[in-house]
Amino acid sequence: MHPKIIPVVMCEGAGIGLWPVSRNTMPKQFIPLFGRDSAFQRMAKLLSDATAFDRLIVVASAEHRFTAADQLQAIGVKAEIVVEPVCRGSAAAVAIAAELGLARDDAALVGVFAADHVVQDGRLFVETCSKAATVAAQGGIVTIGIPPAYPATAYGYIRPGSETAAGAHQVEAFVEACDAVQAARYLADGYLWNSGNLIFNAATMRAELEAFEADVMASVGEAVATGSHDLGFLTLEPRAFAKAPKASITAVMEATEKASVIAGPFGWSDVGCWSAVWELSEKGANGNVVEGRGYVFDGANNLLRSEDALLAVVGVDDIAVIATRDSILVVPKAKAGKVADVVALLMANGEPEACSHREIHRPWGKYLSIDLDRRHQVKRITVKPGGVLSLQKHHHRAEHWVVVRGTAEVTRDDETIIVHENESIYLPIGCVHRMANPGRIPLDIIEVQVGSYLGEDDIIRIEDIYKRC
Amino acid sequence: MHPKIIPVVMCEGAGIGLWPVSRNTMPKQFIPLFGRDSAFQRMAKLLSDATAFDRLIVVASAEHRFTAADQLQAIGVKAEIVVEPVCRGSAAAVAIAAELGLARDDAALVGVFAADHVVQDGRLFVETCSKAATVAAQGGIVTIGIPPAYPATAYGYIRPGSETAAGAHQVEAFVEACDAVQAARYLADGYLWNSGNLIFNAATMRAELEAFEADVMASVGEAVATGSHDLGFLTLEPRAFAKAPKASITAVMEATEKASVIAGPFGWSDVGCWSAVWELSEKGANGNVVEGRGYVFDGANNLLRSEDALLAVVGVDDIAVIATRDSILVVPKAKAGKVADVVALLMANGEPEACSHREIHRPWGKYLSIDLDRRHQVKRITVKPGGVLSLQKHHHRAEHWVVVRGTAEVTRDDETIIVHENESIYLPIGCVHRMANPGRIPLDIIEVQVGSYLGEDDIIRIEDIYKRC
Repeated sequence: MHPKIIPVVMCEGAGIGLWPVSRNTMPKQFIPLFGRDSAFQRMAKLLSDATAFDRLIVVASAEHRFTAADQLQAIGVKAEIVVEPVCRGSAAAVAIAAELGLARDDAALVGVFAADHVVQDGRLFVETCSKAATVAAQGGIVTIGIPPAYPATAYGYIRPGSETAAGAHQVEAFVEACDAVQAARYLADGYLWNSGNLIFNAATMRAELEAFEADVMASVGEAVATGSHDLGFLTLEPRAFAKAPKASITAVMEATEKASVIAGPFGWSDVGCWSAVWELSEKGANGNVVEGRGYVFDGANNLLRSEDALLAVVGVDDIAVIATRDSILVVPKAKAGKVADVVALLMANGEPEACSHREIHRPWGKYLSIDLDRRHQVKRITVKPGGVLSLQKHHHRAEHWVVVRGTAEVTRDDETIIVHENESIYLPIGCVHRMANPGRIPLDIIEVQVGSYLGEDDIIRIEDIYKRC
Repeated sequence: MHPKIIPVVMCEGAGIGLWPVSRNTMPKQFIPLFGRDSAFQRMAKLLSDATAFDRLIVVASAEHRFTAADQLQAIGVKAEIVVEPVCRGSAAAVAIAAELGLARDDAALVGVFAADHVVQDGRLFVETCSKAATVAAQGGIVTIGIPPAYPATAYGYIRPGSETAAGAHQVEAFVEACDAVQAARYLADGYLWNSGNLIFNAATMRAELEAFEADVMASVGEAVATGSHDLGFLTLEPRAFAKAPKASITAVMEATEKASVIAGPFGWSDVGCWSAVWELSEKGANGNVVEGRGYVFDGANNLLRSEDALLAVVGVDDIAVIATRDSILVVPKAKAGKVADVVALLMANGEPEACSHREIHRPWGKYLSIDLDRRHQVKRITVKPGGVLSLQKHHHRAEHWVVVRGTAEVTRDDETIIVHENESIYLPIGCVHRMANPGRIPLDIIEVQVGSYLGEDDIIRIEDIYKRC
């Protein structure tokens, strides 16, 4: 018997192929695309199968660590959350996983999984992982290859070689498909999609990284060893980690002789674009998929998604119409792969909606800007039970807070005031203030800002329980 | 020399072919579709040409009388505004015009024009009207026919007969085109589009209406004679007017022997659907038309219009994407004629956005709902200088008002309180209150409503300077 797999979920990437829903401020792995759970939550649930897996480790950016924690709490999954101060590429990410595994057990088997991958058959996924673990336990590095469902050009391919163990094959090459013709040839020749998910003996992985990416392994080893525990997170030591060169794990997988591939026929997608979302969704009448308030009149196989507005699509087929509160995308499903390029152009044009959502998540809750003009802004602020905003002041604006649900505990200079539902409080320019939710239910506040400058950078943080100042 | 034409602009119709921008609460004639002016304002400006026209008369519904007045004031055009208590069809509308004309002058020449028609060449339009007036002065009824620009099936056609005067022809028949083949045949045979715009001798029109629609003429005659002048409007007497049978003026035009047609080659459209808007708009790169924040990537001849959200259209041609704050329409331009049917289906489904805008215009100004939840609503309210809301109370909600621009004079039970910018006031459930703008600049208020029922019908109006209670 080999030890259980230590599953490490990587929450990297912005997933801009799913813009406008997915952006830097809330990337696709944290968004519920099918049903109630996000891809991250689905993956976390799969990796909670105690027959195959040890306690979950989640690697997240500093920006998204609270989102990851909240989403795990919502599904009742306990995990160790490790904060990557910056993103240093897949070699560094795998090195973190190896290092964390070895911290638990010298013989650790580690599985590295992407938070934004969607698996159709969970039972078969766990079985595949277990099979890979048997191979990894012999000191191997096993990559999970996916039997291709179609000649994709968006995925990398693996050419499997001779069988090395039950169901495991040598990796002959990692290749890309330049076009559909080449991809079709790969399919005919039995190539597999490269899912990027790995299961390995941690000691072997460390040795191979030391051999082929020594600087990465050294920096990561130091960053993990000198990381700091705070607010329930392990944050890697930023200076040491930043020294790790940006490198891809594929180079290591190509160089090592320990690599093998196991086919995982469990139905898999990285949900890279809106056509994939349509593929994976349950279809309604005429093949249309409608999330939110939408109607299709005289059209088939469309994907409609609306956060707020009423959406009417008339006389078109095979199109995706995606509407958030602040942005709308219209693209034929067949061209959905172009969206990432479009978002890059929008970013280059300085459009804020390319990167940032109108609803912003914070460790204490979230806020949504509902009205903005030259000299005033209105926000709807939700504070979680126990949530506490930073103690702060503004140079250029006064604020009026109206409590519309729950109870607020407001600090205003030397006072502490309890503000109940249907009560308000005024915060003049320059006063030092803080809002907290001392109650048992979420606190909803309408904030009316009045002033000559309303930017988020006119927040002078004096104290913050989440260490953001 | 004949008298000048008394121009009467009819502001009827909801224009739902231009949904979601045009709806019952703000129909297309009042919406700026090209440039800054609405179709109504452009028409009013054209009809202010003093060489050809007498002082303008505007016929509007009770609901839109203040909008018409505001839009006229904005362009500096003086007019008599006549309020139709209900809509009773085109025969009644023409009867009103004849009656109002005769009230000014027994020999009056009257022109009836639709507020939502768009004219390309204003000089030629005025010339055509003058030519028609010469014929009308001989006791005739002249309809303006448009030389067809393409084989339209959405317009009615006129078959001209022999010439009766310089440029005027007998009307042989009014016909509809069932399909494009028939329409093309009409074009080849020299038929004209029926614009519905008429220029006539008022006494002749009254006589012909008395002959062919006697009940309409009698009811309208009484409703005009017993109408009431108030707040600068002439409101037709509702009971008398309601007795007018619903009838089309076309039946009268077919029956009378006084009708002739004059061709008006001035470029004309009733802007019935979004493809017409694209046709009439100035094109940008690749034939795309973009109003508001929109981008087309890899696409041609599209129409984009967004009130608020960022709009990205990728890889499609010849499509209209129209986004308001609360609704989004996606339709190929070639199918834009179906939109009215779609809106009817949305209405049947009880979707409020089919009829009502989120921004609601009132005689005192306007409001916009910016956040709505089960137990609270936030509105941005703008009150014109001198505007006064009704004295009112609510059974189910308290209100918090924060002034973000201007100065408010607030009545609260027995108090009158001046609330300045960056100040707020609380209105408990059940208190009798009123807001007014005593200042010289618009007053902007953020209203936060808190309560168990937030519908517009929980407004008990006690007093209203606009006579709405």
